Amino acid sequence: MIINSNFGNVRESYLFVEIARRVNEYRAANPSADIIRLGIGDVTQPLPAVAIKALHEAVDEMSRAETFRGYGPEQGYDFLREAIAEHEYRARGCDIEPDEIFISDGAKSDTANFTDLFGKGNTIGIPNPVYPVYLDSNVLAGHAGNPSGDGYENIRYINCLEENGFKPEIPDAHLDIIYLCSPNNPSGVALSKDDLRNWVDYALENRALILYDAAYERFIREDGIPHSIYEIPGARKVAIEFRSFSKTAGFTGLRCAYTVVPKTLEVETHNGGKPLDLHSMWLRRQTTKFNGVAYIVQRAAAALYTPEGQEQITRIIDIYLNNAKTIRSVFEAKGYRVWGGVNSPYVWLKVPKGMTSWEFFDYLLDHYHIVGTPGSGFGSMGEGYFRLTGFGSTEKTLEAAERLKRG
Amino acid sequence: MIINSNFGNVRESYLFVEIARRVNEYRAANPSADIIRLGIGDVTQPLPAVAIKALHEAVDEMSRAETFRGYGPEQGYDFLREAIAEHEYRARGCDIEPDEIFISDGAKSDTANFTDLFGKGNTIGIPNPVYPVYLDSNVLAGHAGNPSGDGYENIRYINCLEENGFKPEIPDAHLDIIYLCSPNNPSGVALSKDDLRNWVDYALENRALILYDAAYERFIREDGIPHSIYEIPGARKVAIEFRSFSKTAGFTGLRCAYTVVPKTLEVETHNGGKPLDLHSMWLRRQTTKFNGVAYIVQRAAAALYTPEGQEQITRIIDIYLNNAKTIRSVFEAKGYRVWGGVNSPYVWLKVPKGMTSWEFFDYLLDHYHIVGTPGSGFGSMGEGYFRLTGFGSTEKTLEAAERLKRG
Repeated sequence: MIINSNFGNVRESYLFVEIARRVNEYRAANPSADIIRLGIGDVTQPLPAVAIKALHEAVDEMSRAETFRGYGPEQGYDFLREAIAEHEYRARGCDIEPDEIFISDGAKSDTANFTDLFGKGNTIGIPNPVYPVYLDSNVLAGHAGNPSGDGYENIRYINCLEENGFKPEIPDAHLDIIYLCSPNNPSGVALSKDDLRNWVDYALENRALILYDAAYERFIREDGIPHSIYEIPGARKVAIEFRSFSKTAGFTGLRCAYTVVPKTLEVETHNGGKPLDLHSMWLRRQTTKFNGVAYIVQRAAAALYTPEGQEQITRIIDIYLNNAKTIRSVFEAKGYRVWGGVNSPYVWLKVPKGMTSWEFFDYLLDHYHIVGTPGSGFGSMGEGYFRLTGFGSTEKTLEAAERLKRG
Repeated sequence: MIINSNFGNVRESYLFVEIARRVNEYRAANPSADIIRLGIGDVTQPLPAVAIKALHEAVDEMSRAETFRGYGPEQGYDFLREAIAEHEYRARGCDIEPDEIFISDGAKSDTANFTDLFGKGNTIGIPNPVYPVYLDSNVLAGHAGNPSGDGYENIRYINCLEENGFKPEIPDAHLDIIYLCSPNNPSGVALSKDDLRNWVDYALENRALILYDAAYERFIREDGIPHSIYEIPGARKVAIEFRSFSKTAGFTGLRCAYTVVPKTLEVETHNGGKPLDLHSMWLRRQTTKFNGVAYIVQRAAAALYTPEGQEQITRIIDIYLNNAKTIRSVFEAKGYRVWGGVNSPYVWLKVPKGMTSWEFFDYLLDHYHIVGTPGSGFGSMGEGYFRLTGFGSTEKTLEAAERLKRG
């Protein structure tokens, strides 16, 4: 058989493997060191009580023939699609219908699987630094093209530079497909309404598609920061939005997310064949290659939209945002340049002059027994920067802050 | 943007939509008719008690910070991979390691997503009739090539004909990739050890890859029918195996399956680039594009491997097999030619001379108020045949049998 040779073009992501290696080596040499992990992108707070209750109830439904549920709709149950349309979109004045919302097992799956809809020959814009899955999934699918320099033929990096506050720069040239992530992973920077309007206008002019990853939307607390790209006029013509319950409600181990694909997209989708729209294509993709999310998990997600659920979520996010603020403050007090930590669980800092991201990793581990994530792991423009997160426990985060203050 | 024009080549599957339309129309015209659905491919028995208990316990773990689980390994938790390796494989003398087992959200996802690993230019063998996802996923990915006649350029149908007992015929020509499904959906026919040995030998000779779908393995009760392709010598060199908890343990609404990708595959994987093996490729695919199955669901699956779990599963399968036997017997008594219903929940029958599959559908609905599935929905070679299933309740199945006997 002939295999997909693009798998040979993906650059191995040694980031977390290398972090684990260095931490283990350090631990072996310093067995008494109390290492605090602030590099983690995973949640630590337990599931909200409403989700636990909904799960138990739904499990009991599955134990009786009268209430048992087998295959559900691949696109998700109406009760959840309707709750999302109402609470996430209509409540914010965004005109999104339940049948434009596709429930899935994760934003990672959705952003990666959406490449199934791309043809060959697109020019694809990907921020740098950013969550690595956008690039890797395009490389695997062959959409990135051959490696070229430290990039790929069909990929244009959208640089996010310190001088622009790590906001993605609108390119001079034409892009067909654009990935955006706000609040951003890793920089924690959130796009304002004006920033996002510029991108939507660019996409409208270029008849391009924006893939908008809003997985950290729930951390936005400031006014003037859109929670959804559909708050921007015209976005229904050009944008897909990815959302997740992972960071919102601690569902990283439960797996539930959703993707909004408007029926009104006016992206030019030429293909030499019959006209196809992205909404129908995604529906076809999901019904052919996916079998829906567990009923019990969808019940847990729907329970989040009760008033108690919303309050419980807010309390959990408060904890992470306070942790991020603690980390941000201590580094600011030490004279570091810092971004994020507001509207985001991520704190992004500039490493001291003359150090690389990895050298700073070793320095933090050695001097403070604190583990973070080197910025260079998120793209070449992340070199010289470093990511810390508010996802640890408050106790450990405060302890880490004390160490940093003392040192 | 340029879209994937192969989406325009997939033939719409109107099968279940058309069934629903005809049933609704009939119901509107005959409101008092008590319609019994025996066409259903979904389970109806509630989850086994061990799974319910494991779910409740795991949900409680998710409610406390000390026992909460966030992201798990994309390939699945070791406790489940080890239980599967031990009970499904080593216990049958098959040499499969836990790290060759990849836990997923469904065999549908896995069979479809596995096409990510294929390059362009393979000749792909697909049984006819069979579960439609094998073909549709290859069409969407462009591996099928352009439509040609009632097939596609790169697809060779492996005919399953009445004169061969609906067993897939070994082709004269070379195939690169071969799909097999045993016990088969829709025909219910299971391959014997000799049948399967012939296929493994063919694959070894042709250096081809077999994708073996054993989703209905648990229904096998007769000796001499392999439960796994790895019972055949040499299979570790040529075969991937797909398994699922959906039909085994009623997980269609819970979502858990697994795929075995041996590290010893010797399939020739030329690609013009660096050598890649399918095990590493699938690991890369899953870690890049998937985020694992819910912890609570994996705990439920692992609980099935206790002695009580195995007993509960057997009792559930007994119900479905008895229903299938009831259906098979009544049609045999009426003089129909019938296959399956043994080692399978599916009963496959030849419709009366002169009728099409759809005409028989209307006849059963009209005369007996019974709904089944036309064989032509599974491929052109299914025309003239009809699928019924043992997945209904025993009460309804017996009632259907009474009507058929009377009429």
